[in-house]
Amino acid sequence: MNLPTLDFWFDFASTYSYPAALRIQALADEARVAVSFRPFLLGPIFKTQGFDTSPFNLYPAKGGYMWRDLERICADLTLPFLRPDPFPQNSLLAARVALVALNEPWGEEFCLEVFRSQFGEGWRIDDAAGITKILARLEIAPEPVLTAAQSDHNKMRLRNQTEEAQRRGIFGAPTFITADGELFWGNDRLERALAWTKKTDLNCA
Amino acid sequence: MNLPTLDFWFDFASTYSYPAALRIQALADEARVAVSFRPFLLGPIFKTQGFDTSPFNLYPAKGGYMWRDLERICADLTLPFLRPDPFPQNSLLAARVALVALNEPWGEEFCLEVFRSQFGEGWRIDDAAGITKILARLEIAPEPVLTAAQSDHNKMRLRNQTEEAQRRGIFGAPTFITADGELFWGNDRLERALAWTKKTDLNCA
Repeated sequence: MNLPTLDFWFDFASTYSYPAALRIQALADEARVAVSFRPFLLGPIFKTQGFDTSPFNLYPAKGGYMWRDLERICADLTLPFLRPDPFPQNSLLAARVALVALNEPWGEEFCLEVFRSQFGEGWRIDDAAGITKILARLEIAPEPVLTAAQSDHNKMRLRNQTEEAQRRGIFGAPTFITADGELFWGNDRLERALAWTKKTDLNCA
Repeated sequence: MNLPTLDFWFDFASTYSYPAALRIQALADEARVAVSFRPFLLGPIFKTQGFDTSPFNLYPAKGGYMWRDLERICADLTLPFLRPDPFPQNSLLAARVALVALNEPWGEEFCLEVFRSQFGEGWRIDDAAGITKILARLEIAPEPVLTAAQSDHNKMRLRNQTEEAQRRGIFGAPTFITADGELFWGNDRLERALAWTKKTDLNCA
């Protein structure tokens, strides 16, 4: 039997994508839902809204609240939390590498490790040195992966993926999209997105 | 024994304040927490962020998502839902009347009725005719209330309340603030705000 699928759209620099990424697999297993990891870039989408950086930087009251809220959420989940510096990290290279990695069995683990090392240990993820350290943890040779990530073909894949995100109405991250096109925005909507996926799964009929 | 108190800050025009207002009393009773209704105006706070209307109007993707999300939330709660027209409603008069009403035993019921009639029945709440209809439902004579609401003293009270909201870091609605100053933003944070209030209640020690 095929499990129904939920698309998990995220940007590696997105703060609330961190707890979502670390929570999603166990909750999806419990709900008998498959998860498809869809990394994309929020930057180009923010630009079309007139933002040249994270809205959390542009609106200090909202930003201050977000850091405190995320700290509380991570404490509840017993996830370590450190504020990335600088914020937001440039997530372009990490996203390109993730697209390559997600063709391999270790792809999702790579994505989780980018989130863990950035938000749990304060690692920088915005250059080849940071990404190489993460790949080393997974015992993956970095050179072929980085070369494939920086190929024109792969760069185009990420551009297409980001354009698809925008076309589907995504304006922030994390966003969950069900097979029937229902969109749920935010870590706090993960449970509802899974419930919706189960409810509309034709295999359950 | 005094119950610990949670401050419930809301703007009558705020979409997510509708389900929050309709949910809060039953959940607070269950948690043995007292609720203090604190109406304020988001408009002046949005202005200091450079917004001249609701961000849901300024950012269409976010706005479109919000309407769908709210529709789903109301369906789950079996709350009727109609999109106000125009949106946002000017909530100045309703907030002024609420400050007067909240000195009376029917104050919270007035607030709930403003939300119900606006978001459940499509009534306009932005002028004296709409507010008068709501007061009539509660069998309250409108004239003395409207006169008190428009007094210089009461106008100043609302300005002060809005300034207090901004000073306390509020940037959106609904916002819940605990007695120890912890801020929770959004209808989806109501349960956490109540749990925090219980956890830090010294009477429980």
